[in-house]
Parts: sequence; structure tokens; C-alpha cells
Amino acid sequence: METFGKRYHPPGTPPGTLTRHGAGGLTQIRLFEYRDEHFTETVSPTSQHCLAATKNDWLDWLDVTGVHDPTVVNQLGEVFGLHPLALEDVLNSGQRPKIDVHEQYTFLVLNLPHWVDDEIALEQVSLFISNDHLLSFCSGNGSAFEPVRERLRKGFGRIRSQGVAYLLYSLLDVVIDSAFPLLEDLGEHIEALEEQVLENPDKAMLHTLHQLKRDLLLLRRALWPQREVVSRLLQHDVQWRDAAMRPYFSDCYDHAVQVIDLIETYREMLSGLLDIYLSSVSNRMNDIMRVLTIVGTIFIPLTFVVGVYGMNFENMPELKWQNGYFGVWGVMIVLAILMLAAFKWRKWL
Amino acid sequence: METFGKRYHPPGTPPGTLTRHGAGGLTQIRLFEYRDEHFTETVSPTSQHCLAATKNDWLDWLDVTGVHDPTVVNQLGEVFGLHPLALEDVLNSGQRPKIDVHEQYTFLVLNLPHWVDDEIALEQVSLFISNDHLLSFCSGNGSAFEPVRERLRKGFGRIRSQGVAYLLYSLLDVVIDSAFPLLEDLGEHIEALEEQVLENPDKAMLHTLHQLKRDLLLLRRALWPQREVVSRLLQHDVQWRDAAMRPYFSDCYDHAVQVIDLIETYREMLSGLLDIYLSSVSNRMNDIMRVLTIVGTIFIPLTFVVGVYGMNFENMPELKWQNGYFGVWGVMIVLAILMLAAFKWRKWL
Amino acid sequence: METFGKRYHPPGTPPGTLTRHGAGGLTQIRLFEYRDEHFTETVSPTSQHCLAATKNDWLDWLDVTGVHDPTVVNQLGEVFGLHPLALEDVLNSGQRPKIDVHEQYTFLVLNLPHWVDDEIALEQVSLFISNDHLLSFCSGNGSAFEPVRERLRKGFGRIRSQGVAYLLYSLLDVVIDSAFPLLEDLGEHIEALEEQVLENPDKAMLHTLHQLKRDLLLLRRALWPQREVVSRLLQHDVQWRDAAMRPYFSDCYDHAVQVIDLIETYREMLSGLLDIYLSSVSNRMNDIMRVLTIVGTIFIPLTFVVGVYGMNFENMPELKWQNGYFGVWGVMIVLAILMLAAFKWRKWL
Amino acid sequence: METFGKRYHPPGTPPGTLTRHGAGGLTQIRLFEYRDEHFTETVSPTSQHCLAATKNDWLDWLDVTGVHDPTVVNQLGEVFGLHPLALEDVLNSGQRPKIDVHEQYTFLVLNLPHWVDDEIALEQVSLFISNDHLLSFCSGNGSAFEPVRERLRKGFGRIRSQGVAYLLYSLLDVVIDSAFPLLEDLGEHIEALEEQVLENPDKAMLHTLHQLKRDLLLLRRALWPQREVVSRLLQHDVQWRDAAMRPYFSDCYDHAVQVIDLIETYREMLSGLLDIYLSSVSNRMNDIMRVLTIVGTIFIPLTFVVGVYGMNFENMPELKWQNGYFGVWGVMIVLAILMLAAFKWRKWL
Amino acid sequence: METFGKRYHPPGTPPGTLTRHGAGGLTQIRLFEYRDEHFTETVSPTSQHCLAATKNDWLDWLDVTGVHDPTVVNQLGEVFGLHPLALEDVLNSGQRPKIDVHEQYTFLVLNLPHWVDDEIALEQVSLFISNDHLLSFCSGNGSAFEPVRERLRKGFGRIRSQGVAYLLYSLLDVVIDSAFPLLEDLGEHIEALEEQVLENPDKAMLHTLHQLKRDLLLLRRALWPQREVVSRLLQHDVQWRDAAMRPYFSDCYDHAVQVIDLIETYREMLSGLLDIYLSSVSNRMNDIMRVLTIVGTIFIPLTFVVGVYGMNFENMPELKWQNGYFGVWGVMIVLAILMLAAFKWRKWL
Repeated sequence: METFGKRYHPPGTPPGTLTRHGAGGLTQIRLFEYRDEHFTETVSPTSQHCLAATKNDWLDWLDVTGVHDPTVVNQLGEVFGLHPLALEDVLNSGQRPKIDVHEQYTFLVLNLPHWVDDEIALEQVSLFISNDHLLSFCSGNGSAFEPVRERLRKGFGRIRSQGVAYLLYSLLDVVIDSAFPLLEDLGEHIEALEEQVLENPDKAMLHTLHQLKRDLLLLRRALWPQREVVSRLLQHDVQWRDAAMRPYFSDCYDHAVQVIDLIETYREMLSGLLDIYLSSVSNRMNDIMRVLTIVGTIFIPLTFVVGVYGMNFENMPELKWQNGYFGVWGVMIVLAILMLAAFKWRKWL
Repeated sequence: METFGKRYHPPGTPPGTLTRHGAGGLTQIRLFEYRDEHFTETVSPTSQHCLAATKNDWLDWLDVTGVHDPTVVNQLGEVFGLHPLALEDVLNSGQRPKIDVHEQYTFLVLNLPHWVDDEIALEQVSLFISNDHLLSFCSGNGSAFEPVRERLRKGFGRIRSQGVAYLLYSLLDVVIDSAFPLLEDLGEHIEALEEQVLENPDKAMLHTLHQLKRDLLLLRRALWPQREVVSRLLQHDVQWRDAAMRPYFSDCYDHAVQVIDLIETYREMLSGLLDIYLSSVSNRMNDIMRVLTIVGTIFIPLTFVVGVYGMNFENMPELKWQNGYFGVWGVMIVLAILMLAAFKWRKWL
Repeated sequence: METFGKRYHPPGTPPGTLTRHGAGGLTQIRLFEYRDEHFTETVSPTSQHCLAATKNDWLDWLDVTGVHDPTVVNQLGEVFGLHPLALEDVLNSGQRPKIDVHEQYTFLVLNLPHWVDDEIALEQVSLFISNDHLLSFCSGNGSAFEPVRERLRKGFGRIRSQGVAYLLYSLLDVVIDSAFPLLEDLGEHIEALEEQVLENPDKAMLHTLHQLKRDLLLLRRALWPQREVVSRLLQHDVQWRDAAMRPYFSDCYDHAVQVIDLIETYREMLSGLLDIYLSSVSNRMNDIMRVLTIVGTIFIPLTFVVGVYGMNFENMPELKWQNGYFGVWGVMIVLAILMLAAFKWRKWL
Repeated sequence: METFGKRYHPPGTPPGTLTRHGAGGLTQIRLFEYRDEHFTETVSPTSQHCLAATKNDWLDWLDVTGVHDPTVVNQLGEVFGLHPLALEDVLNSGQRPKIDVHEQYTFLVLNLPHWVDDEIALEQVSLFISNDHLLSFCSGNGSAFEPVRERLRKGFGRIRSQGVAYLLYSLLDVVIDSAFPLLEDLGEHIEALEEQVLENPDKAMLHTLHQLKRDLLLLRRALWPQREVVSRLLQHDVQWRDAAMRPYFSDCYDHAVQVIDLIETYREMLSGLLDIYLSSVSNRMNDIMRVLTIVGTIFIPLTFVVGVYGMNFENMPELKWQNGYFGVWGVMIVLAILMLAAFKWRKWL
Repeated sequence: METFGKRYHPPGTPPGTLTRHGAGGLTQIRLFEYRDEHFTETVSPTSQHCLAATKNDWLDWLDVTGVHDPTVVNQLGEVFGLHPLALEDVLNSGQRPKIDVHEQYTFLVLNLPHWVDDEIALEQVSLFISNDHLLSFCSGNGSAFEPVRERLRKGFGRIRSQGVAYLLYSLLDVVIDSAFPLLEDLGEHIEALEEQVLENPDKAMLHTLHQLKRDLLLLRRALWPQREVVSRLLQHDVQWRDAAMRPYFSDCYDHAVQVIDLIETYREMLSGLLDIYLSSVSNRMNDIMRVLTIVGTIFIPLTFVVGVYGMNFENMPELKWQNGYFGVWGVMIVLAILMLAAFKWRKWL
């Protein structure tokens, strides 16, 4: 599963070297400029346009999706004066979520998990925030941000009247909350397994349990550091954040903690499930073996008895008895009943 | 078990959006106004009444139970000037316990566990405390607070003569202590299992152990953060708390720690129990298999012997011996005794 | 085992409500007043006497054992001006060890473990220390403190010439060191088991291992917080403690850490033992099954051979051979030897 | 595997004693002097040369590879005024990564992992950094630093125009990133095993799993402390580091954390794999035993039946029936079908 | 193994009570006085001599080995003005390593592990350091310190020209490094086991694994706290330590961490080994059982067939066929081959 990998340069490459990675989707750039009732959206703006946007006193959000082309990233990096190492992180997806507070801007890397054909995939979201600009790069198709774009376009809620910190909060909220539907799916899956495991454990479950464990491991690795990112966002005193935004970021923090909480809970439930699965399988196997062995054990002495009277000694008085044969049957039936009773009494049956 | 879930908005919803969740019980509002001997209780007060109450110099407790209706919460939020994100937390039950210190008020979220038909259910208790108001929302029917209401009505103890912090303490105490009866039930269950597991492990136990483990996991997740909430309540220097209340909150803290302690102890006992259960089951199975295999093993050579004398060779001298048959019986009996003795000597039987 | 339980009030009871718990032993009160050569001991002093004692400039130790009667505790609480919540903790044994620093006095709760008929029981020791008074409550019969009383009566060592902090140290030392004889017993038990488990694992061991695990779990829960209590005693700057006492409390701290160290070591040894036990049992079972199965496997082909010559075909040339019977015996003996050799060679035997 | 060992002096040896360890590769010394366009490289410089280099105002990097000879290290130590204990650490490879901030220089020890014939080997890299000198010792052949040397020689990127801190960063980057290709190999190995383990678990896998676990354990021990080293490099305020280097070391830190993250993730995946392997093996074994036992169990009663009619009683009416033989066949076939059906119905087959 | 025990006083004994413990080796006292070229060694000095030594301006090391006699310790304690509780710790070996900073001196307790007849034994080393005196007590024969004494006597290295801190460092270095040879032995043992466990797991290994686990547990408990002791030595600003000693103590700290690192690594390797051992044993057992069961299963139907033709029905047409007997052989051989092929095809063989 390539989602675990990180694209890295071979050791020794000069820092800030930008390389083009696999084709992927199309790169799309949108520039949103707004202030209260004012709002313009420009698709695929030119560098000049972007540069102009940074100079006027509107807020602007440059929204880049499907990041694969180093030249585009490089150009934007020059326009906004971003550090080459940060640009490297933008292009090499698979980064660990982090926050870097530079003098001019704050740089955030986040992971946005979603289902792709029953596998969890991670989109890397990289955000540069400064006084009144927000620059977002999304390694995937960026459809998760569509509701935020809609709210901007239609002027729903407070989004247009607030500063750039509110926009950041809106995106952060989308990124963090995107884990909830995944976790709910995993949770339902686990609960379905729980019922099944006690009644009818089969071999396919082992595979499913293993798959779920991997998914949770992946999610944990991708989302655990996000809590710290938001926590540092709460502590740092950055220019672009006013006090009124504190409850919003605090709310994000609560959600990030809740996500981790759920992941840990599901991990514990899964490891409990594995124990139960193993016990159930072993109980079932033991039941089978016990019953079969008992059947065998009842017939062994009987087979011995019939073997005795199959011997060809010339002098075997029983063979000549008129009711010898029927007597042997009687003896064998009594023997079998006694053995069954003994097993029953010992609670082996 | 839906108790694990959290009701969340789809990612991208504007913050502070209030939505109506499942019908549930009736919403009931009670307004308690009191100061020393003065005491009035108003059921279902109007917004105007509430607003008036916040202005006079009596203490007042607005006690809302069965919270499902966003309009009610919204109205109260406006009257008391509460943050929309806090109101969102009130309505979306399944929050992690937390404390948010706002300028005007302190906001607490707590979990109140109780039995509902042999399953642990959690009621979410949300509290807003300011200088002389306490606003409580309870997602369940709020019957757990009845003793506190009674003490207020009858003027028992110090409750009427103390400030709002004492009322908060009384509610906190109820919420935290509500875990003790549950834990005692679980503890008795575990101890009953302990005796049974060594004597008579059966398959149903696996199910019970698993159920108990889940219950403790749920409780741990719900109650662990409450310790931190109370601890931060002890540290924070909030306006409405005077020094004399410190021992009371410190007592709450001790109880919260004790709850966690018990949960952890029970969890360790349970995991010990699972080990013992598995060993017991395997010991029992081994006993059965060993005895049965030994029975089989004794008869196998005997069956071979009788097979030998069932052969039809023309020249088999033993067959013609007068006492051949009885000799063979003798040999077989000796053989069986020798084998039994060998097994006994090796402590296999 | 009721030692795990905590006696708690039903949720909602007004704080500081004192209730009488089970009969237990007799309550006995002793008042020790001393200063250098001066020493008086009063058994069952009156409240007036106690009040007088607090006013003179002698040191005094009010030593209460067998605490079950709320009225006694209430009276003393009033004489010494103690907080009702602290009194509640004194009466409700099963508290977690803790230290509360009030303005007038320091309140300590400790656990004193000892054997009662092969089970570990905990006595709760509650101490109130102020400038020159020490008030001790012991939920058991208090016999553990007898050596300290003797040293006071006879004037051994420095105890009479030192302040109340030295008396506190003496009691603390008794409480913490009381764990060592128990741990030594447990340690010897574990080492005895270690030798046995590798040679002769039997089913009763499972029960013993489980019992030891429980005992250590109980001890850990009861004694772990005592380290923190002593540590905070070392840090806090309380009036009644002079600098010269530091090495003494530091010594207590070392002992408390050593106790925890031993408990953790024994817990690890026990869990190692359980692993070894399970492996030993499984090894033994495997040995039995292997040998028995091999015996069976050797006879199965032989029994087949004799079955062949028990067939009644009219045309079976071997049957008519003069030495057919003896030849078959030869074949079977060779077959058995070959099989044994093969098993030996594969190291299965 | 000697990679785990540390070469140590016998206890009691005077500190700073330098001893010659195993032959190993050739020691090679290179001196790089540079400043912007200026650049000279001297292979095997004399002590005098080195001393001169420390005095001019160019930056210089003394690059020593294949460190085994105490005299060489001793000479350099004298030239640069290094502490004897630091020199001891240089020679005794197998040190734990660490950072020591001396007054005159900062001393770093790092581990550079690489594959040697399918086994992970560690080269120890020791770095002394001062205002404008960097002295590096590499216990291996130092080929990992070749790209950095090339960049210096050809003047690629910023390396010549920046201070000594940038050179340090370049080396650090090589050392830390050298773990990624190894981890990628291990990761691919683990994923290949994952697919195999569910379908076709064989005994060789146990060996492979164990080997991978060891490799990860070794890597973890070698690389875990590097995170702390870089973290302390970020915090310490050393003379030779200017503020502009912060993002570079911060990038190194992110990589070091990512390495640890991957190691921990792989460790968890491996331990999950072991569980799955054991379950798979046990499932397969159970399948075999179940089917074989069922086959046995079906024939046991049939063999009993044929045994019955092999008895030699004179009076056995069935033997004389015309169709007795065929009837017995019928009975046996019916019996076998019934048993198969019962097993099928119980889902044992 | 008595190495785990701690000699303790019965609870309630007055603090500072010195009691004589088991005979043990002879107590030997040596007084080293030195300053640069000056050096005198006095064996068994008198108290007066010691007192005089404390007054002159030479450095002196009073080196006491084989500490069992309370009177000797008491005398020295009075001469040097040591706290009675510290003397108690000196006599009661089995203390946890610790550091106590008193006003007049610093008191250290350390553990020196060494092999005694294939078992790990711990010598307790207690050190009192003040401005220019060092007082060392060693519970064993103190032979580990012989190299340090030699260096003092012969004036090797810097030892005579440095202060008391350097002497302390020399002893500390011996104590901490004494763990390396032990750990190397354990490491070799573990690696030898690793090779054996995969090829030829036998029952004796279980015992060895358990023994190694115990040894590591003992070492961990004894050596873990030494890291903290050295760390606090680095932090504390004590009179007798000058800045130049920092690298030396820092070197000790590195070694102490390395020791712990090795112990933890070996513990993980051991627990991995136990898993592998159990899997190997179970794999081997499964192999045996599978092959044997298959052998049994092949013969069961064949035995049934020969049983059929051993029946005595009068009308059994096959018996009269000319080649019936040979036909049956053919049928049976075909049957056996088919079964073998089926097992082969299912990969059961």
C-alpha cells in the first residue's frame, strides 16, 4: 500500500531541489479575493495577478489543488517569498503533519484522509498563512474544500466578514473532521465483526482484522501529530490571529483529540477482538476434537472385543455357546453405555 | 452500541450550526432562584423571566434536562450571551469532558454514566458558570440531580447559604460519584467470574469477559478526561470561586482519581482473568485428550494381539494349544496392567 | 475480596455527612503529652482534656484506633477545628493515599498493609499534623504503632526531644516499612513457585499465580500513591517542619520508592512465571501426546498386516506356506524396528 | 551480529586511553578549504597544513574516513585542541548518538546505517564543529559523503557561499536520510510477507520475521537518539549557527522524526504479522487435524461392524443369510452417509 | 536468589539503628593521602590518623571494603560527621542507587554488578564526597577498585594532580563500566540461543531463557537508577566540582545510558526469542502430529478393507474369486497412492 511511503530524495541531494512526481490529477489554481460583500474568484490566475492580490487590502486565498508540477510551486514560492525547504515539503507528499512558524508566515502540513475504493488514502494539505493571505496546496483533487469555497462564494455565515484566521479555521475544521466519517465506517465494521466473531469465527475474519489494524495504524500515524499542530497554533502568538479566534481553534483541538481518542479506542477493541477470535477458533476446534476423540474412544474397546472372538483358537469355549454371539452384543452395548455415562458424568460430552 | 458514537456535522458545515437530534425525552426547564432563606422554583420559565433572573442579586440555577431542541438552546444562548461553538457542544452529545474558561463564564462538559437495561449509557452534562448564575444542560432526564434539587428546596446543609461554586461542586460531586455504583456492579461481576473461571470455565464466559472489557473501555474513555477537568478547575483562578471552596473541589478531584484507579485495576483484573480462562480451558481440554488418548493407546496393542490370532495361516502352533486362548487373555491383561503402570509412573494419568 | 472496595455515600448526599460503618474492633483513644523528660499518657481522655492539651506548650499525640464511630470523630473534629470533608475521609476507609495542606494543619491518608489469615488487608491511617499536635486515626487495631508508643513511653532514641515532625516521621516509617515483610513473603512464594514450575507444573499453580497477581495488584494500587505523598511532604514548606528533618523524610521517600520497585519487579517475575508455566504445561502435554501417538502409529501398520491374513479368501497362497506365520512375525518385527529407528532419527522420540 | 556490540575498555582503564581497533579499511584524510569561488582539496594533508588551515579565514572541512589508527586521531586532537574523552568516543565505534557542547567546539556522534550483504551495518560519524572548521571522522569508507564533496568541488547550490553550519547541515542531512532507503527495503519486505502470510505460511517465515525484528530493533537503538541530537542542535545557541540556518536544522529534525515514526510503524506491523502468522499456522494445522480426525472417525464404526462379522461364533444367524454380506455393505454405506451428513450439518467439514 | 532481597529493620525500629549483618569477607581499611608527587598509603589506619588526615591540606581517600561491622562504620561516621541514616544505608546493602546532597558532603549509593559462579551478584558501593575527602564503602571485597588504587600508587595519568572530583569520576567509571563485560556475556549467550532456537528448540532452553530474563530484570532494577544519579551529579552545583570535570561526568552519563540501552535491547531480544521458541516448539510438534496422523489416516481405510474380507458370511462371492486376494491388494495400493497424492496436493505432507 503506497500510502505508507514517503517520496524522498536520494540522500545527498542539495536541499530545496524540486522534482516532478508521478502524473496524478490536473493542477488547478483558484484565487479568491474578498472583503465583506466584495468577492471575486479567478480560475488559473497569472503570477502577476497573484502578486497584485498580495498588495491590495482585500483578503485572498490562493487555492492550489493537484500539486505535482515543481514549476508551478516554484513560481508561487517566488511570488510569496516562501522558503525552498517548505516548497520541497509541499511537493513531497507523505510528510508528517507539522507547524513551522517563520517570520513572514506560518507553514502548516496536514493530512486529509478519505476512502478511495475501500482503502484509506491521504491527501496532503499544505497551508501558508500570513497577515491577510492564505495559500493552500492540496495533493489530491481538493473536493473536500468545496463546501468552504461555496460558503465564500455565497457569503454564508461569518466567513467573509472575518480575517484570514477564520478561513484557516474553516479549512482546518474540514481537514480534522474528515476523519470522523472514516472512523464511523471502521467503527461499524468492528461492531459487525464483534457479533460475528463469537458466533461464527471463520478464516476470512483474520484477514479483515489484519486489514482494519493496518488502517488504524495508518490513520494513527497520519493524524496523531495533528493534535500537536493545533495545540501549538493555540499557544503561539502569531500576528494574524486575534483573541476572538481562540474558541474556534480550541474547538478544532477538541476534535483532533476526539479523533485520536476514537482511534485508540478502536485499536483496543480490535486487539480485544483478535483475542476473542483466537479463543473462539480454539474453542470450536477443541469441541470438534473432543467429540470425535470420544467417538473413537468408545469404539476402540468394542473393536477389541470383536477382535477377540475373531481369533481362531481351537479351544475357545464361548464360541460354542448357543447365545455367545448375542451375549457379546449385550456386553458391548452395556460397555458403550457405561462409557457414555462416564463421559457425561465428567462433563466431557 | 451507539454509546461510542459522537454525533457530528458533515465536514464543512459552518461552525455553530445547531441541528435537531433524535426525539428523546421531553425538554424540561426549571429556574431556581435562592439566597439564604429565599427560594423560588419556576418550571418552564420564559426568556424574559430568565433575563430578569440574571439581573437581580439572587443566585440562580437554570436547570435544563432532555436537551434535543436547538431553538430552546439557541434562545438561552442569546439570553446568557454564550458562544455558538459551546452551544453546538451542548446539542451534540458524545463530547469528551472538557473545561473552557471564557471571559464571561466557564464552560464544562461532563459525562454521567448510568445503567440502562444492563448496558452503560452516558448522559452529557454541560455547565455554564458565571459570577452568580449556573446554567446546566443534561442530555438525559436529569433524575440524578434530584437530590441536589431537594436539598435546595428544603434548605438542607449549606447549599443555600453558599455561592454558585458550592452549587457547581454539588453537581460535580453527583456526576463523578455516579460512577461508583456502576464500578461496584462491575467489580462484583468480575469477582463472581474469578471464582467460576478456575472451577468451571465455559464458553459463555468468553462473551461476558468481552462485554465487561468493552464496558470498562467505554467508561475509561468517558471518565478519564474528567480528572483533568477537575484538576484545571483547581488551578484556574476564576472570579466565582473563593478560597474556601478549594477543599471541596480537591475532594472531587480525589474521587475522580479513585474512579480512574478502579477502572484501571478492573481492566488489569479482567486481562488477568482472560489469561486464566484460556489456561483453564486449555488445561481442561488437555486433560480430556490425555485420558482419551491413553485409553486408545492401551487398546491398540491388545487389538493387534487379537488380530494376530485371527490370522488364517494353516500352520499356527499356538492355535492348537489347549490353553492358548486363555494364555492370550493372560498376556493381554498383563500387558494392559504394565502399560497402566508405566503411565502412572510417568504421571501421565 | 472486600479489600478492593471503597465505602462511598450514595451520589447526591450532602458533603461532610458522617455515617457509622460496620462494628469492627473497639475504638480506643490515647493522649500522649511529652516534652523532653516530661511524659504523660491518658487513656480515653475527655474532650475537655484534649482541648486543654492543645493549649499548653507540650507536644501531644492523640492516637485513635479502631475508627468506626462518627460521633467520636465529629467531637474531635470540632475540638481541633478540622474540615468536615477530611473527617469524611477518615471514616470512609479505602481512600487513596493523599496529602492535603490546609492552612491550620496538614492532612495525610496512608495505607498500612498486613497479613490477615493469608490475605492482605489494608488499615487506613489518617494523620492531622499542626505545629505541635499530631492526631492519628487508624481504621484497624493500631498494633503496628506499638513500638513507637513504647519508644515514647521509655524515652528511647531522640523521639521525645524532637518536634512533632519527628513523631510524624516515626509513624510514616512504620507505615511504609510495613510493606517489606509482606513483599518478602510474596517474594519467597514466587521463588518457590519458580523452581516448581519448571519441574512439575500442576493445575493448582494457576490458582496460586492468579492469587499472587491479585495481591500485587492490590498492593500496587494501595502503595503507589504513597511515594507521591512523601515526595510532596519533602517539597512543601510547612511550618512544623525544620530543615534538620529533611534527611529523615528523604529516607522515607527512598523506602517508598524501594517498595514500588519491588512490587514492579515481582509483577514482572510473575508474568514471566505465567509464560513459563504455560510453556511447561504445553511442553508436558506435547510430550505425552507425541509418545502416545507414536505408539499408536507403530501398531497401525502391524494391525493392518494381521488384518490382511485374517481375510478369508480361498486363494491366499501365503496361508499355506509352512512358515508363513513366522514370516509374518518377522516382517512385522522388522517393520516396527524400522519405524522406531525413523522416529529416533527424526528426533521425534 | 557484532553490530550490536560496543568496543569498550576494560573497567578501570585511565580515561582518554586510545587503543587501536581491528584493521578495517584504509584511513584517508582530505582537507577542503573554500570560500565562495575559492576552493582547494588536499588529500592526506600534514599536521602543519591542518594547523595553517585553522588560522586562515577560509572555511575548512577536514574529512577523515576509515578511523582505526589512534596515532592519527591523537595528532589531529592535538592540532585542534580536542578533549581526550571525545577522541576516545571517535575511536570506539558503537557509541550512542549524542551532542556535547564544549566551549571551543560542538561534538556530535551520529550513526549512518547502510546495507552490507543483506545485513544492516552502522558507520559511526563523529563531527567537531567550531566557528569555521568542521572535522569529520567516519568509521567506514565515507562513500556516503561523496555527493557533498562533489557539490563542494563543483560549487553546486549554496554550499560554498554559506558558513560551516550549512556544511554541517549537508552532512547531517546525508546521515539522517540514509535511513530512508533501508526503511523502504524493510517496508517492501514486510508488505511482501503480509501477502504471503495469509495464503501460505511456512516455517521459513518465522526466521525472516525474527530477522526483520532484529534489524528494526538495531535501527531503533541506533537512530532514536538522533532525534534528540538534532532537537538540541535547534535549541542550543551556538556561536557558529546563524538564525537563517534554523529552517534547515528544523527540516533535519522533521526527517529524524519521520525515521523514528517509520521504524515504530514497521515494528507494530511486524508484531501484527507475527500474530497473524501464528494464527494462520494454527488455522492450517487445525484444518488438517480436523479433516484427518473426521476420516478416522467415519471408519472406526465401520471397522467395528466388519469386526463383528469376523467373529467365529458357531451360532451367528446373520452369517447364514443369503444377502447378509450385501446387507452389511448397505448398513455401512448408510452409516457413513449419516455421519458425513452430521458433520456437514455441524459445520465440521 | 538472595540478590533481590533488601536487608531491612523490622518496622518500628528507631532510625539510625546499626545492626551487624552476616559475616561475609574481612573488613579492610586503606587510607590514601596524596597531592601531586606526594603519596602515602596506610592500611588499617586508626581513628586519630583519619581525623588528622581530614585536617591537613592533602587529598585523602578512605577506602573501606567488606563492610559488615557496625562499630567500624559508626566510628568513621563520628570522625567525618555523617548522618546516622546514611550510615544505616551503608550497612544495609541492597539499597537503590541514589544521591543525597547534604550541606557538608554528597552521599552516593551505587551498585557494582559482577559474576559469582554464573550468577550475577551486586556489591553496594557507598561514597561520601566533600571538599577534599572521599570516603568509600564497598560491601564486597573491593577488587574492582584495584586498578584505580594502582593508578594512584604509580601516579599514572592525571589522577594525582586532580581534585577529589577526578577520584570520584575514576570510581564512578569503574562502577558503571563493570556492567559492560556482564552485558557482553549475556549478549553472546542470547545470540547463541538465537541460532539454536530456530534449528533445535529443546526444553532446557525454556529454563535458560527464564534465567536470562531474571538476570536482566535484576540488572535493570540495579542499574536503571544510576543514570539518574549521574544526571543529578551533572546538574548539581556542588562545591567540590570544578567546570573542567563536566566532560568526565558527562562521559559517565553516556555510559550509564548505554548500559540501560543494552539492557532494554536484550530484554526485547529475549522476549522476541521466547515468542520464536514457542512458535518453533509448536511448529515442530505440529509437524510430528501431522505426519503421524496422516500415517494413521492412510491405514484406517485399508484396515477396514481387510476387515471386510475377514467377515465370515457364507455368501461372499469375492472370496471365491481366483484372484480376489490379489485384487484386494491392488485396490488397497491404489487407495493408498490416491490418499498420499491428495495429501501432497493439499500440501499437508
